[in-house]
Amino acid sequence: MLIRFARQLSIAMIIALLFTRFNVSSQSASQSKPNIIVFLVDDMGWQDTSVPFWNKPTDFNRRFHTPNMERLAREGVKFTNAYAMPVCTPTRVSLLTGVNAAHHRVTHWTSPDKNKNTDHEDPTVKAVDWNINGFSPVPRVEHTFHGTALPEILKQNGYYTVHSGKAHFGSTGTPGSDPLNVGFDVNIAGSSIGHPASYSGKANYDSPVNGKPHRNAVPGLETYHGTETFLSDAITIEALKAIEKPVSDKKPFFLYLAHYAVHVPLTADPRFLNRYLQAGLDSTEAKYAALVEGMDQSLGDVLKYLDDKKIADNTVVMFMSDNGGLSLSPARGGQAWTHNLPLKAGKGSVYEGGIREPMLVKWPGIVKAGSVADQYVIIEDFFPTILDMVGVKNAKTVQKIDGKTFLPILRNPAFKDGTRGLVWHHPNRWIAAEGPNIHYASAFRQGDWKLIYNYRQAKLELYNLRDDIGEAHDLATSNPAKVKELAALLTKQLKAWNAQWPVFKATGKPVPFPDEVAIK
Amino acid sequence: MLIRFARQLSIAMIIALLFTRFNVSSQSASQSKPNIIVFLVDDMGWQDTSVPFWNKPTDFNRRFHTPNMERLAREGVKFTNAYAMPVCTPTRVSLLTGVNAAHHRVTHWTSPDKNKNTDHEDPTVKAVDWNINGFSPVPRVEHTFHGTALPEILKQNGYYTVHSGKAHFGSTGTPGSDPLNVGFDVNIAGSSIGHPASYSGKANYDSPVNGKPHRNAVPGLETYHGTETFLSDAITIEALKAIEKPVSDKKPFFLYLAHYAVHVPLTADPRFLNRYLQAGLDSTEAKYAALVEGMDQSLGDVLKYLDDKKIADNTVVMFMSDNGGLSLSPARGGQAWTHNLPLKAGKGSVYEGGIREPMLVKWPGIVKAGSVADQYVIIEDFFPTILDMVGVKNAKTVQKIDGKTFLPILRNPAFKDGTRGLVWHHPNRWIAAEGPNIHYASAFRQGDWKLIYNYRQAKLELYNLRDDIGEAHDLATSNPAKVKELAALLTKQLKAWNAQWPVFKATGKPVPFPDEVAIK
Repeated sequence: MLIRFARQLSIAMIIALLFTRFNVSSQSASQSKPNIIVFLVDDMGWQDTSVPFWNKPTDFNRRFHTPNMERLAREGVKFTNAYAMPVCTPTRVSLLTGVNAAHHRVTHWTSPDKNKNTDHEDPTVKAVDWNINGFSPVPRVEHTFHGTALPEILKQNGYYTVHSGKAHFGSTGTPGSDPLNVGFDVNIAGSSIGHPASYSGKANYDSPVNGKPHRNAVPGLETYHGTETFLSDAITIEALKAIEKPVSDKKPFFLYLAHYAVHVPLTADPRFLNRYLQAGLDSTEAKYAALVEGMDQSLGDVLKYLDDKKIADNTVVMFMSDNGGLSLSPARGGQAWTHNLPLKAGKGSVYEGGIREPMLVKWPGIVKAGSVADQYVIIEDFFPTILDMVGVKNAKTVQKIDGKTFLPILRNPAFKDGTRGLVWHHPNRWIAAEGPNIHYASAFRQGDWKLIYNYRQAKLELYNLRDDIGEAHDLATSNPAKVKELAALLTKQLKAWNAQWPVFKATGKPVPFPDEVAIK
Repeated sequence: MLIRFARQLSIAMIIALLFTRFNVSSQSASQSKPNIIVFLVDDMGWQDTSVPFWNKPTDFNRRFHTPNMERLAREGVKFTNAYAMPVCTPTRVSLLTGVNAAHHRVTHWTSPDKNKNTDHEDPTVKAVDWNINGFSPVPRVEHTFHGTALPEILKQNGYYTVHSGKAHFGSTGTPGSDPLNVGFDVNIAGSSIGHPASYSGKANYDSPVNGKPHRNAVPGLETYHGTETFLSDAITIEALKAIEKPVSDKKPFFLYLAHYAVHVPLTADPRFLNRYLQAGLDSTEAKYAALVEGMDQSLGDVLKYLDDKKIADNTVVMFMSDNGGLSLSPARGGQAWTHNLPLKAGKGSVYEGGIREPMLVKWPGIVKAGSVADQYVIIEDFFPTILDMVGVKNAKTVQKIDGKTFLPILRNPAFKDGTRGLVWHHPNRWIAAEGPNIHYASAFRQGDWKLIYNYRQAKLELYNLRDDIGEAHDLATSNPAKVKELAALLTKQLKAWNAQWPVFKATGKPVPFPDEVAIK
């Protein structure tokens, strides 16, 4: 009887174990797909952090306090040559689609208002017919780029997809303006706007004009209206709430936590301001640094959440910014075009200050902690990389993907490829004032070489970034062969993508292609 | 017939001439009364101008651009020892009534909300029962000081009286809150508020909270809503429009042009900002300097108006500020308590930085152009001086006047009286933080000597302003006789006025009087 009972028990145990194993196995199957977090910051420059991305710590690195980025760098890989587009919507559409801006034709920031070209009038060239309404998940929406969006593919592959923060994929009234239309299960605070009216909960994240809500009032955070909750905090709290569901369901999630920070307006974040004022910083710069630290606090909260839920080991955290740091004055304190030093220029420009980004990736078990990758990568690479990470092969997409997976770099940070060519294409006028190649310019990087093309002056510049990260020494006259070589490659790629090309107002003739200028 | 006609004509001409003469004579009678303009600035410090008020130009004088104040100084007299109270409503009520703050008991700034004590809670002493609702033109209004207001007397004496800008005489719901109740024929933009929600016309001079207008939205300027007109400009344009009537009627006018500038919020004045940013100023300080220059532009517009109307010769222009420059950080850029150097401290304090003001008076024919008066004067002196200027003797007033006419100084800038005693009395807690004698303090000046009394520490300090304008060298221990002498004078005056006196929370006993401390 005892033996019989024992035998029955053991059968029950075996069944139980089998069930348990099956469950575990089922969980493992889910968990083998890593959770993916893209932590995207707005307008954050390459130097706006205490993590040194150059070959030595700079005064800016000493100014900023981003302890959680430091942690992420310690636990992951730091990309020292990561790039985005010079302004924000092009970057976001590239991330969403894997397509280069020259190719998707959302070459400039989109207005929340439909059919509104945000180009400033230029006296020399006519505005091009770019996709002024941004990205569209459905075909035949005027002035949009139609594609299959990354979250849509992830969702189809079992991911729970959460958008929190700034979307800015398309103009109001087009399908792309709503993150729920581009494959997100949840949307928190995302819409067609590109910056918040205010970061202050007390102000309802609004700044009314003539008694009416500001067009850029942040939607969907009514819970926090009238409270002290800073915007960066509100979208973080809500994002972490939203992933409670997939975490408890043991389902993989994709969290796109796209901060409104650190875009203007520089609402003072009282939690962090004093440190910078006491350091004697210009008061606008102090507000900016506090905004950066508030964003970093959000990163810390995310990392802590992953620890607390014991899912950090199976979660990829990718930190990125969408364009170079704003360097206009008075929007920022001090002198214009000095805020990204040693890099030249800032947001809007195809010089390094406008496009080089602080990028970090943590993926326990895959990425070696504390490693550094010097290989250049670009924003459209995120799309194929993430699909690669989650094991989606040959995803069906409307668009042809231009990006390249950087999974090999994650596995081996020493990976080097100096033959790849990167393209920046900005046939647009960003602001009324002139600035260092912030309007109507393209650029091309191959290896350490970088070519800049200024359309209106039909001028080519050549820099060697290895020796001259500040793009101070134009080598175009001393190395015409390299200019010719790169101009040909840039021209070929732009033509292959049928990139938009402006015409001169005076003659009606198109601006010459880079290779035509190089030949002369 | 020809002779007869000629005779008739000459009689007609004589009659016409007589009428003309009578009219002219009548106009002369009016015009012999000078127009009076009091140009009062809010929170402007003694050094916030390119006019040097010290014995040499300072770095601050070089920082600020106030060309119209420079003009006023060239054409009038500069008072180098002019004083107001450490915060704003006390100053305004003293100006309105000729009474010292210790006496009118509006010792602190009044809330727009009725019956609300703006004192911060202090752990050591209880709040005193000061007149928290401000000034009242009628008796028996709770917590107000009842008096006969300067514009009321001027109006009774044939003046057309115009208020434009910040009133802040009393709380909403009390008669004193409306300038029309205190003797002004016209009120532009004045109410119970002490600062504007915004200086921006685009923002309707508002900054809504939770979708509702800000309590401090500036009233009465709807014409300028949605326009680029900066607040300092709007109240100037409207003020000059308002005096068109008395000017064309050849009636004397009293214009009280009380700027909201340069009180926070530091709304950037785009007309003037760039100069200061380009000079490398901290960006908050650049906004402040631009706000100062916008106010100075208003002064220029007023002076130009007087020239254009050819009434400058018969118009007195008095320039004054209502307390020392704000020197809190982060409200201002840089380190707290450095914004009024060489003066110590700033707004709120009974040190010189909190009470010494940039004062200028132009009165062609009376005041020698470009003269300097070193005799100390105080805000309650404006009342008897203005009545003196317009020839009103023995005006019937409810209140006993404490101020002294400074007309003798205007006639002779070398005038000296070192025997007069000035009193500052601030039995209040201004802000949550501590600062250099910004709470619960009184002060007394006689000649070059100044006594400071800190109630909570029962501590007396003694300074000689001739040698030590920065109040850096406390002479209390080295000169106890002088301390005793001044403490007795201060105590006597405070008792004569029955000034409010706090009690210690721990014991319920009153803070000792200065003379009791000096005796020990």
